[in-house]
Amino acid sequence: MGLSVLDRGLSYGDGVFRTLPVIKGSPQSWNLHYKKLHHDCAALNIGCPDASVLLDDIQSLFTNDTGVAKIIITRGESARGYGYPDDIQPNRVLIKSTSPQYPEDNFINGVKLHLCELRLSHQPKLAGIKHLNRLENVMARHEWNDSGIADGLLMDENNMVIECTMSNVFARFGNRLVTPLLNQCGVAGVTRDRVIAGAARLDLVVSEENIPLAQLMQADELLICNSLFGVWQVTELSQQYWEKQSLADKLNALLKD
Amino acid sequence: MGLSVLDRGLSYGDGVFRTLPVIKGSPQSWNLHYKKLHHDCAALNIGCPDASVLLDDIQSLFTNDTGVAKIIITRGESARGYGYPDDIQPNRVLIKSTSPQYPEDNFINGVKLHLCELRLSHQPKLAGIKHLNRLENVMARHEWNDSGIADGLLMDENNMVIECTMSNVFARFGNRLVTPLLNQCGVAGVTRDRVIAGAARLDLVVSEENIPLAQLMQADELLICNSLFGVWQVTELSQQYWEKQSLADKLNALLKD
Repeated sequence: MGLSVLDRGLSYGDGVFRTLPVIKGSPQSWNLHYKKLHHDCAALNIGCPDASVLLDDIQSLFTNDTGVAKIIITRGESARGYGYPDDIQPNRVLIKSTSPQYPEDNFINGVKLHLCELRLSHQPKLAGIKHLNRLENVMARHEWNDSGIADGLLMDENNMVIECTMSNVFARFGNRLVTPLLNQCGVAGVTRDRVIAGAARLDLVVSEENIPLAQLMQADELLICNSLFGVWQVTELSQQYWEKQSLADKLNALLKD
Repeated sequence: MGLSVLDRGLSYGDGVFRTLPVIKGSPQSWNLHYKKLHHDCAALNIGCPDASVLLDDIQSLFTNDTGVAKIIITRGESARGYGYPDDIQPNRVLIKSTSPQYPEDNFINGVKLHLCELRLSHQPKLAGIKHLNRLENVMARHEWNDSGIADGLLMDENNMVIECTMSNVFARFGNRLVTPLLNQCGVAGVTRDRVIAGAARLDLVVSEENIPLAQLMQADELLICNSLFGVWQVTELSQQYWEKQSLADKLNALLKD
């Protein structure tokens, strides 16, 4: 289970990844994950392996098991230096891990967020992409060490809310459901897209907007989502509290379809 | 020559590196490089191996050889997730490569730079550090494919000059030698420090400042430097030309001490 130390994924974080649940050997929302993986590879000019190749990898490693698949695609191996040859061959890595055991309470009573001090930097050429340059997330996650905190909310230097370290954010204002624009920073997750689609079925008007923190704190309901836990309502952030409501449950029911 | 795929250097670019020449088994400017490595590890809360351990690695791999050493220190291996345990053990990688054969003309007649379109993002928590999140450098280096171009000049989104993709920048105005402040982005190289020290011996007044591109273009002399080639004068950038002068040669002579 080794990778060449000449792989540019190590040297430069020159690659992308996805994390997704696998249930009884079947990768969940596979088409959406593969579409994102392909999009992200293209954005970095990395050759994305065919879906069939990756599905074969998953089949081989998981057979009929349930767990989490992490797929990493790197640009491949090269000699020292930032440049790379046109015919460089991408490498792929598949890592299997056990399904995380989230506290049932997160679904029933909601979760608490830490407000991160670190601000995400603006890089429009990388915004939205789930690439391997994740030191900001690592540093942000290191800001708290309290198992009662589910995730950390990240802003940019203009106090705009962007995402959490491992999840995307939605805020409901009446019948409007708003999620941060990710054209300067942040990762556009598959579950974010699925929530956008699902919310329309719940008669919510969904939009992507710049959301200042002060505005977020006025939301009627605050949600975070990712591919592993689905949707959680946020009930505590910066000494502000929200009553547990029903939108997260409704969206989780839709996501199970 | 493999690394675990669970190493956080691959997963998140969670580590730092140095590149330095080794002459007949002896790593050049070792104390300065180790000091930077230690500083950069500390900035990311990564345990830096003792200098003696790294010197032993170099001794074992190079014996009496000449070439380039690339040292990578990662935070180590962990389970999936941005968090890491307090007792995580760093991993180290040493890669030996042949010395690059730079064109003699670069030293005699100076070099041409490409002006990069990509803008470096501001992240004060990572500024100056030679970490493994280098996708910006990879993308910037991909902007040109002309072997007559020595490097690409990078600005931030405010049109401030920061560095080149693989070198630091100096601009001489009369007896003042100015290099960009690296408190928002960029990598502070060892040779940058050595040029700062050397320039004082040449009766130049050295300072770190914000340098708008328009101001840089007015410089009497423009230089780039790194640990492998030393110092080159820039004689062409964005259809502006500079006569070859003597500062690069003087600095290279000092760097040989």
